[in-house]
Amino acid sequence: MNKLKIGIVGGTGYTGVELLRLLAIHPNAELAVITSRGEAGLPVADMFPSLRGYVDLKFSDPAQVDLSVCDVVFFATPNGIAMQQTRELLAQGVRVIDLAADFRIKDVAVWEKWYGMTHACPELITEAVYGLPELNREKIRTAKLVANPGCYPTAVQLGFMPLLEAGAVDASHLIADAKSGVSGAGRKAEVGSLFAEAGDNFKAYGVGGHRHLPEISQGLSAMANNPVGLTFVPHLTPLIRGIHATLYARLNNDIDLQQLFAARYANERFVDVLPQGAHPETRSVRGSNQCRIAVHRPQGGDTVVVLSVIDNLVKGAAGQAVQNMNIMFGLAENAGLEVVPLLP
Amino acid sequence: MNKLKIGIVGGTGYTGVELLRLLAIHPNAELAVITSRGEAGLPVADMFPSLRGYVDLKFSDPAQVDLSVCDVVFFATPNGIAMQQTRELLAQGVRVIDLAADFRIKDVAVWEKWYGMTHACPELITEAVYGLPELNREKIRTAKLVANPGCYPTAVQLGFMPLLEAGAVDASHLIADAKSGVSGAGRKAEVGSLFAEAGDNFKAYGVGGHRHLPEISQGLSAMANNPVGLTFVPHLTPLIRGIHATLYARLNNDIDLQQLFAARYANERFVDVLPQGAHPETRSVRGSNQCRIAVHRPQGGDTVVVLSVIDNLVKGAAGQAVQNMNIMFGLAENAGLEVVPLLP
Amino acid sequence: MNKLKIGIVGGTGYTGVELLRLLAIHPNAELAVITSRGEAGLPVADMFPSLRGYVDLKFSDPAQVDLSVCDVVFFATPNGIAMQQTRELLAQGVRVIDLAADFRIKDVAVWEKWYGMTHACPELITEAVYGLPELNREKIRTAKLVANPGCYPTAVQLGFMPLLEAGAVDASHLIADAKSGVSGAGRKAEVGSLFAEAGDNFKAYGVGGHRHLPEISQGLSAMANNPVGLTFVPHLTPLIRGIHATLYARLNNDIDLQQLFAARYANERFVDVLPQGAHPETRSVRGSNQCRIAVHRPQGGDTVVVLSVIDNLVKGAAGQAVQNMNIMFGLAENAGLEVVPLLP
Amino acid sequence: MNKLKIGIVGGTGYTGVELLRLLAIHPNAELAVITSRGEAGLPVADMFPSLRGYVDLKFSDPAQVDLSVCDVVFFATPNGIAMQQTRELLAQGVRVIDLAADFRIKDVAVWEKWYGMTHACPELITEAVYGLPELNREKIRTAKLVANPGCYPTAVQLGFMPLLEAGAVDASHLIADAKSGVSGAGRKAEVGSLFAEAGDNFKAYGVGGHRHLPEISQGLSAMANNPVGLTFVPHLTPLIRGIHATLYARLNNDIDLQQLFAARYANERFVDVLPQGAHPETRSVRGSNQCRIAVHRPQGGDTVVVLSVIDNLVKGAAGQAVQNMNIMFGLAENAGLEVVPLLP
Repeated sequence: MNKLKIGIVGGTGYTGVELLRLLAIHPNAELAVITSRGEAGLPVADMFPSLRGYVDLKFSDPAQVDLSVCDVVFFATPNGIAMQQTRELLAQGVRVIDLAADFRIKDVAVWEKWYGMTHACPELITEAVYGLPELNREKIRTAKLVANPGCYPTAVQLGFMPLLEAGAVDASHLIADAKSGVSGAGRKAEVGSLFAEAGDNFKAYGVGGHRHLPEISQGLSAMANNPVGLTFVPHLTPLIRGIHATLYARLNNDIDLQQLFAARYANERFVDVLPQGAHPETRSVRGSNQCRIAVHRPQGGDTVVVLSVIDNLVKGAAGQAVQNMNIMFGLAENAGLEVVPLLP
Repeated sequence: MNKLKIGIVGGTGYTGVELLRLLAIHPNAELAVITSRGEAGLPVADMFPSLRGYVDLKFSDPAQVDLSVCDVVFFATPNGIAMQQTRELLAQGVRVIDLAADFRIKDVAVWEKWYGMTHACPELITEAVYGLPELNREKIRTAKLVANPGCYPTAVQLGFMPLLEAGAVDASHLIADAKSGVSGAGRKAEVGSLFAEAGDNFKAYGVGGHRHLPEISQGLSAMANNPVGLTFVPHLTPLIRGIHATLYARLNNDIDLQQLFAARYANERFVDVLPQGAHPETRSVRGSNQCRIAVHRPQGGDTVVVLSVIDNLVKGAAGQAVQNMNIMFGLAENAGLEVVPLLP
Repeated sequence: MNKLKIGIVGGTGYTGVELLRLLAIHPNAELAVITSRGEAGLPVADMFPSLRGYVDLKFSDPAQVDLSVCDVVFFATPNGIAMQQTRELLAQGVRVIDLAADFRIKDVAVWEKWYGMTHACPELITEAVYGLPELNREKIRTAKLVANPGCYPTAVQLGFMPLLEAGAVDASHLIADAKSGVSGAGRKAEVGSLFAEAGDNFKAYGVGGHRHLPEISQGLSAMANNPVGLTFVPHLTPLIRGIHATLYARLNNDIDLQQLFAARYANERFVDVLPQGAHPETRSVRGSNQCRIAVHRPQGGDTVVVLSVIDNLVKGAAGQAVQNMNIMFGLAENAGLEVVPLLP
Repeated sequence: MNKLKIGIVGGTGYTGVELLRLLAIHPNAELAVITSRGEAGLPVADMFPSLRGYVDLKFSDPAQVDLSVCDVVFFATPNGIAMQQTRELLAQGVRVIDLAADFRIKDVAVWEKWYGMTHACPELITEAVYGLPELNREKIRTAKLVANPGCYPTAVQLGFMPLLEAGAVDASHLIADAKSGVSGAGRKAEVGSLFAEAGDNFKAYGVGGHRHLPEISQGLSAMANNPVGLTFVPHLTPLIRGIHATLYARLNNDIDLQQLFAARYANERFVDVLPQGAHPETRSVRGSNQCRIAVHRPQGGDTVVVLSVIDNLVKGAAGQAVQNMNIMFGLAENAGLEVVPLLP
């Protein structure tokens, strides 16, 4: 089989460079085009010396590039960009994976409220498949347009999924206390993300409302077959990479939690249920597409605690996008994704 | 007034050096003795060069020192040491502040179960006053023996106190998701606290049971006038100092939360209730005895979220101990504690 | 004596907030005005919650404020601002301390080359006193305008000073290998200072030429009474605060280095010469105005190695500025500066 | 070809887990045995969850294991272990790669002085090949015993090599100012390596003498064909991984430095000479076997500055060991080593 021709729109952010890291050595992929408005002409490896010897491409001007030669285009852009170009790409037979939020929320009004803009192609939202393979693998196989999940939503949904599908908890009062590394804020020059601001510091943010709340609620409600009630509190922690979601719910019945989780994810290459009593560490997935989960029932009470960790840039972004690509094109789901986590 | 003569038992750990930092420039205190079994004879400032010019003492051999010259002795020792020496010190008229856990739990059986040893002087437990000034100020004034609270317990109790005292929440299902910097583990050579282990890493630990759980439960139950149900999940985060407690409870009624907290702490020098919508950062209390708290009600639902931050070595240990000393000896409660937090 | 009325121009950066931290509890100072173009009207403590309870001021619009009521004005501004306002302030009898570089370099042409702008008041450069107290204390006493040294220049000059004054080394080939924490880049939104860029990363920068090179060379040449040859290589290290300068020179003769340094700094409150064989740590001066120095002669060879550490925001900026203020106004030189370093 | 059977002695440290990370997906290697005295019986992936799914081995008791089934044995042990077992392994036809220092220094007396023990098999020192492929590739091809270089020595020697081989600098006064991440100290429980000690802190250490000094001097002297004079100052910086060596020397003549370095390393897969004016970052080699080098001549003077970065655990330890194995067994030199660096 020929290698897939890959296009990346917006390659100067962290999800962009992460796509490059993974795709540069993907056995079935060939990087064809990478665009950047601001950096057109610059060799990619001049901006990211880690890619020297692996990526020879230069950034192209998005206005001058023909993406129709690609089999698949990844949008590693800010929200609101992919929706402007997707219709045309699909018409040209190019498949699209959007790492931003343009197609994640099915209810357009909800999306427009949280993202503060008018949606450019609401008719495509229905067609888009939410790219959480552990939930939607079959739909992803035939999808033309995949909405790659957010980082928090990936960690939280994978953690709650077995409980909600089994009806094991009170879905009206779920709590997701989530902690993210600073790369989750992207490679944008913002004061709050400076080393001297975010370093040696810990804080919650967006307690009043975070854009990932409706995305998570939509996913959890589908799993529960009912609208859920969710309190979602994100925190910023001085990690470069990593998300740790600590999830709380009240049990409805006396189910064997370890068995429930083990069975649900028995055939999932990228979800690893840890043995009873374990505490996953974010570094145990650093640089890899793995999600590791442990489930606890402290003091034998009626509160279940789920610990779920991912690398926000891999399973929470670029790695999951590649996983989706693999599924869409009938490749081995783990092709290019067998990277051993970097520890320490 | 003469300066108080201070003794510190076990001055080589982080709570010890922190006591020295604060007491070295305390206007009413004079460092008289500091002991260390392993470092007897060594000038304190040789171990902690930050104290050069401020502390001239050498470590003394605890076997050879006469602590009865002191007005007050701080135990900055591992658990189980203070209980062996306190009876004699009290008999000599020396007041004692224990920064470890020996006198924190009123139920001896519970203490012995969680700390895995037999208590050496259970008769003193009743006499000991739990040194959370915002709760027990009047008792502390006349206390001979103060059990200085743990770091997590300080942050969590101050965060829940207004809610429980007002009966505003369902006390049977409280959740405390707490995050601590690595100095909380002390200055002990342990693999898990190494820079290359704890750095760029985030994890929960002790979900099945942590020694601070019974201490917190005891305090919260007293506030609620009823046994509470608490799920307590501590996490290790790559901070040097700082605790962030994120607290969740279900509201019983439609109380004005901001007003409730503001009123409860209106006269507290070391508890700062932030304006509505704020998110306290751990660095905003770095090096200071302050606790900063914000209270939220996300989406206007029935779940209240309290964010509470302290410096684990100050308000969570040495600073609170000095605050207790100030109260016990009739000094200004903030004497020696007006240190502006170090930011950035 | 009345308290000095203090003005701060440009208080939203790290040197600004650090001035506030120190001056808020300075016994002889009263914060009168603090300006910020962008944040006029905002309470300072809303931007820096660490100052809640210590600073009640709001930021003032620089266009609307009358600084002539101040005894002294600190410029904590980018380069090129102080030179536009200093002439008028001096004429009004206000003394000025510039924490930026406008008045540091005596040779206007050199300044204009390195800073890329035309100097607005070259006639004041001669009048300005370079505010390194250990070198220029007497001139500072009567100065109306003090050019506060840069952070690297402070650490490097204090480290080389005893050697050069004594003619002990070959001044034609000095090497300064300096490492700075990220706060040295200021509180500006720049990609290179992001946590996810500067964290867990180490690099040199500006090897071809850094603005502090001419400043350091000027100072060292004055000490040596001859133009020196200096290779200066700055590095960025994942610290929030701190500079470590490692200095190399070839010895001319067999002088007692420990004695040389000890004697030179015997009466300096803020320079601490460590015992033979010591290695100063940046954290041993965290938050304090101290410079700690150790001098080595590895393998007894003819190369001397000096290790010099400061907190770049204190002795390298705001603390030294306050030290200069104290000298200028006849206060105790350490007034407001007896802050014990924060360790850990 | 059959896969090489690999033995690892001492697999619980950082070089051990790093060998496992690389060898687990090496196309020509099969992990046969891994020993640990303290952890015998424990599955490796229980200690290092990052290896779950990649390494199924358990730690074996070194006393009970037969290493003679291996084609090659790596010693990832403290100094002084390999020398006790190597003679027997060689006699059994097993090749040995020692990641510790037992066979690095040719002069036994020097080794015994710096390492403080009697060498157990001095007769093997001559036979051992110093495993710096860029220097000794041909000898490594036929070596039975390879002494894998230290981390600092790798970065420093690769940086100085082109200059010394060309006789371009005064070799009597070389300066190596080197900075290492904390993992260089190993996975040992030591106070100085704690997060709360090494975090947010920078210091030099071992200025009076470090064990890597004789190793580096030996290598540089061979390159220069003459004994060199070296001042080596190592520093500890709050990185997990990474070494940055900043090298200084005086030029003898007006050689084209960029050309010199580019030519010397033109055919080296794992040494990357950056374009003129560049500053390599440690993170640009994180997790990879690459060494990146830039060469500068500040202000056009006669001092050359070389910047050399490696990942201390890869090119400075396990990666270089695998590179040596590849050469010894006639495999592609980069087999198993094409890991794209992890950035950010």
